[in-house]
Amino acid sequence: MKLLVTGGAGFVGSHFLDRFVEEHEITVVDDFSNGSLSNIRAVRRTIRLVRADVSKESILRKIGRVEGIFHLACHPRSFSFKNPTRDVDVNVRSTLLMLELARKFDAKLIFSSNTGIYGDPQYLPMDEQHPINCKTPYDVDKYASELQIKTYGTQYGLRAVVCRFATVFGPRQRVNEKLGWRPLVATFVRYMMMKKRPTVFGDGEQTRDLIYVKDIVEGLMRAFSSKQAEGGVFNLSTEVETSVNMVLRKLCTLLGEEVEPERGPPSVGDLRRMCCSNAKARETFNFEIKYPLDAALREYVESYKKQY
Amino acid sequence: MKLLVTGGAGFVGSHFLDRFVEEHEITVVDDFSNGSLSNIRAVRRTIRLVRADVSKESILRKIGRVEGIFHLACHPRSFSFKNPTRDVDVNVRSTLLMLELARKFDAKLIFSSNTGIYGDPQYLPMDEQHPINCKTPYDVDKYASELQIKTYGTQYGLRAVVCRFATVFGPRQRVNEKLGWRPLVATFVRYMMMKKRPTVFGDGEQTRDLIYVKDIVEGLMRAFSSKQAEGGVFNLSTEVETSVNMVLRKLCTLLGEEVEPERGPPSVGDLRRMCCSNAKARETFNFEIKYPLDAALREYVESYKKQY
Repeated sequence: MKLLVTGGAGFVGSHFLDRFVEEHEITVVDDFSNGSLSNIRAVRRTIRLVRADVSKESILRKIGRVEGIFHLACHPRSFSFKNPTRDVDVNVRSTLLMLELARKFDAKLIFSSNTGIYGDPQYLPMDEQHPINCKTPYDVDKYASELQIKTYGTQYGLRAVVCRFATVFGPRQRVNEKLGWRPLVATFVRYMMMKKRPTVFGDGEQTRDLIYVKDIVEGLMRAFSSKQAEGGVFNLSTEVETSVNMVLRKLCTLLGEEVEPERGPPSVGDLRRMCCSNAKARETFNFEIKYPLDAALREYVESYKKQY
Repeated sequence: MKLLVTGGAGFVGSHFLDRFVEEHEITVVDDFSNGSLSNIRAVRRTIRLVRADVSKESILRKIGRVEGIFHLACHPRSFSFKNPTRDVDVNVRSTLLMLELARKFDAKLIFSSNTGIYGDPQYLPMDEQHPINCKTPYDVDKYASELQIKTYGTQYGLRAVVCRFATVFGPRQRVNEKLGWRPLVATFVRYMMMKKRPTVFGDGEQTRDLIYVKDIVEGLMRAFSSKQAEGGVFNLSTEVETSVNMVLRKLCTLLGEEVEPERGPPSVGDLRRMCCSNAKARETFNFEIKYPLDAALREYVESYKKQY
């Protein structure tokens, strides 16, 4: 099928390409603000690449007929208070443009949202009915995009699926300490591979629902391929709670090293526990976790070793 | 006090100026896309006027220190499916910029939201706890602005009050049939003054909570002046349900004419009943209806006669 992938040179996008480039005819839109050419080196000659800002109207003229739009372009949560207008452009304005594109070609839209919009859990695991409590401009923008998708569904019968990602990790995920961009697993792997002591903020007993990027991209395609999923909102998560300390212990075991982490103050607004139900995705489009945490970490570390 | 009024040359904005220009030092931002110089002719020499698009970053450099920001600039609901990106710019991006401005000067922000975000009433009168059900990009954008305001309140302690307007009417409200812009009362008054037959869509028994623009601007200032209102969300409404047919009958009585309206098909997605509680605004900042519908219509018609 003819597919459009926004943010295709980014972390999740490039894994999507790796997985599906042989099966589908893929156009990638990326402005390389966070994505990079090196992420898509392996697939570069098999895709059509459009260098463009997905939040600008001109994008509508640059894209030809597509049957599916995987809207993965994203302005990261950690920058959203620093640049809230860029956040609304990349995380909402772009969605409206993708909705217009989907209307134009009668394409189906898959949108990458985030389980962070639930805020502090009122119960665990959180399902899709959990109340929304947005804490950052990013959360508001992701949620606003979901609501825009809903209005287009009602108004035009537009087919779309919203996928709310748990905490995604895997190869190519960027770490930039200066910009305050330190995803848990990526930062730990990087530090330990560089023989540096990673920092645990707070007591380390805070938990996350950590999902491997390969399970995410597989889930996105299953969501797209399911007639039944249309108009729905789905957590893509593992239903497994893992503490920060546990991640560190697993990496120590994997690398055969004992590492005593640095200790930092608890992060402001850090969630104590995170765990999301994936029952709806399992039941609706047969969503599966093929990479439980141990297997995922093993593959991640192997890939890191190969690369550096 | 030093106040900023966005959309100050528009319908609600210009009435705000008329009422408060003597008491406060007011800067107006307007790009005159919907506002007009004729709206502010009477106050033109008493205000500072900045011609600018409130959704562009450059606005931050054009505005000096202010103590209060009345963010009334708005992209109208009826255009939002036609131009959803402009809607998100004017109705969300601008709010983020006003939040940044409010942070910079430690100013209080008053935001004009809309009771339309409740969607179909689950009970009447609807209070501020009523579930949100956005039906248009405009609704999503107004609601997203409310949520952004909340994140800024939590993150920075920024003082803000959200005012959700019921169906506002009064002098200077624009009608543009070609653009699908036909506010109920303004359209009826205009047609009847021009001796044309207005159109009633559907059976005319659908109701609205009609509030006079002068009660709105008074309410905005009371919301601003109340310490207790900070961080709150308030309906500015009348709690009175009036049917479309009743508005027509009242205008007939007022003008001493019998008018048989044209009949049109029901508007798609038209709400059957609308009525919002103003108890919270009454109790918190002494919100008052000084212009019940009859008095408001009388003044509106008189003002229309004077103008034309």
